[in-house]
Amino acid sequence: MGGDFAPGNIVRGSLDALDRQPEGLDILLVGPQDVLRKEITGLRGREDARLTVVHASEVITMEDGATAALKQKKDSSIAVGLRLQGEGRADAFVSAGNTGAVMSASTLILGRIPGISRPTIGAFFPSASGVCLLVDAGANVDCKPRHLLEFGIMGSIYTSAMFGIGQPAVGLLNVGEEQTKGNEAALGAHALLRTSGLNFIGNVEGRDILRGRADVVVCDGFTGNIILKFGESVPAFFRQRISGYVADKPLRKLLMVPALGTLRASMKSMDYEEYGGVPLLGVRGVSIIGHGKSTPKAIMNMILRAKEMVEKNINGRIEQTMAPAR
Amino acid sequence: MGGDFAPGNIVRGSLDALDRQPEGLDILLVGPQDVLRKEITGLRGREDARLTVVHASEVITMEDGATAALKQKKDSSIAVGLRLQGEGRADAFVSAGNTGAVMSASTLILGRIPGISRPTIGAFFPSASGVCLLVDAGANVDCKPRHLLEFGIMGSIYTSAMFGIGQPAVGLLNVGEEQTKGNEAALGAHALLRTSGLNFIGNVEGRDILRGRADVVVCDGFTGNIILKFGESVPAFFRQRISGYVADKPLRKLLMVPALGTLRASMKSMDYEEYGGVPLLGVRGVSIIGHGKSTPKAIMNMILRAKEMVEKNINGRIEQTMAPAR
Repeated sequence: MGGDFAPGNIVRGSLDALDRQPEGLDILLVGPQDVLRKEITGLRGREDARLTVVHASEVITMEDGATAALKQKKDSSIAVGLRLQGEGRADAFVSAGNTGAVMSASTLILGRIPGISRPTIGAFFPSASGVCLLVDAGANVDCKPRHLLEFGIMGSIYTSAMFGIGQPAVGLLNVGEEQTKGNEAALGAHALLRTSGLNFIGNVEGRDILRGRADVVVCDGFTGNIILKFGESVPAFFRQRISGYVADKPLRKLLMVPALGTLRASMKSMDYEEYGGVPLLGVRGVSIIGHGKSTPKAIMNMILRAKEMVEKNINGRIEQTMAPAR
Repeated sequence: MGGDFAPGNIVRGSLDALDRQPEGLDILLVGPQDVLRKEITGLRGREDARLTVVHASEVITMEDGATAALKQKKDSSIAVGLRLQGEGRADAFVSAGNTGAVMSASTLILGRIPGISRPTIGAFFPSASGVCLLVDAGANVDCKPRHLLEFGIMGSIYTSAMFGIGQPAVGLLNVGEEQTKGNEAALGAHALLRTSGLNFIGNVEGRDILRGRADVVVCDGFTGNIILKFGESVPAFFRQRISGYVADKPLRKLLMVPALGTLRASMKSMDYEEYGGVPLLGVRGVSIIGHGKSTPKAIMNMILRAKEMVEKNINGRIEQTMAPAR
């Protein structure tokens, strides 16, 4: 029931994921059963054996406060869905719902991986060298050096396993390349990352994200969330600028039209839809949070990525790495 | 002598500024006199009565540490140039040199405006509604709520005077619109800004910068510097994407060529060159810091903007506003 286009886009994306993966994937759709059944039969004309509806009577809205909603709505689709994983009836959870609520409920219901003090949200940025994972993208607004180190470790394991990068280059987002630059948290984290055994390439700056200097960029969730949302607003800004530039100028417009497809394609890489959603790393389970405006394609990609996270045993690897630290 | 293209671009930009402003502008060019004189005569064939060379024997490089350089190089062009203003022989200072050194030397030599505890660098972003001033863009990496309030006050005065906006809309950069969101500094600053008498529109998010929701966006210098550098890297990223997309695809390329000019024009607004440089607000004087890669046009714009800041009495307005607070 999560996001602005639920349940339509969620059900459609789930069906698309099942079509894409004829084997090894079953989906539990959590929400008001009548609503969901009607949506499924409306789209498919029949029920699907690999798509099971699990009833949840309540819905946490995008406006609900995370903590209050979890206390008051015990039977929300978010809580019920995560409990399925807690009880071993599901391997992963994906949602396009209230980010704060999914985050809090995931940590509360699934628990943390031993050795991890703060679960983190990792977000994807396109980059000159492919893709860059930014951790933390908003789960932790105030961070200690130790938390930033944990983000780096989890981000490195994720990109290594999911993108097949041997020794992911980990950079610390900062205001300058020199080791002496930065706020208190960054200064402390630099020292920890340097001796972490990660492939730490030192400080990286704002411009280095898109340039692809690092596979993993570590920062606090305040900075990360602001950069993420700034980045998401860039394609729309350019589209608007171009519209304004060609408005009432037939010649300019004529020259621009053939290029629009190319432009759109080149901006696509900045589009959240391709990545589907962002993983919450550090919880004992798989939890992926999607954009509130998730399209069916984004939902499909979230589900396929969740499946991959389970198969690649991301959490087992994190637990193993953190074991000596405990 | 500042920046990667000194003294060539600096001298050329100065001459262009004088051409643009036939009256009311005199320029003191600070640096090794032989080098500067040669550059001027090389470009103009003769000296210009409104262009005076002031000798400085040393140069702070882009790699020099700010504090060490100021201690060791007492006769640097940055120190000499700022002392001219301290002694009343100049009204403003502009430099494309070492940002940290210009910032430190400005605060040290000019002093702070009474009531201001932390001078701030304001940076310009293009926005749907024109331009957005981001303060702080890198002068203060660790901020207390009080500092963020001061940034808001100075930013509001600057945009009001320079862009003729009656009551500039001031937003606090944060991870959510709700008053309860944010890190410690943002939470405290929200409370102070709400009762400041400014036209405070509340929290704004990363996406709101380009959308133009606020005329002034307040944040700590760590976040601000990272967003600024991220934004600066966006046009190059798209250019590269488009090049990659059309490479070895003659048809795509053919369709794209006529649009390139339009694209370039629509991205221009994201280009630092138009704004020239960023003002350091809160010091007792005018100090503008340019990009290390400043073109002659950027230098010219910096000089013209500095003149305007003097004429509009930005500092007098800041001092007057801060007076009751003392």
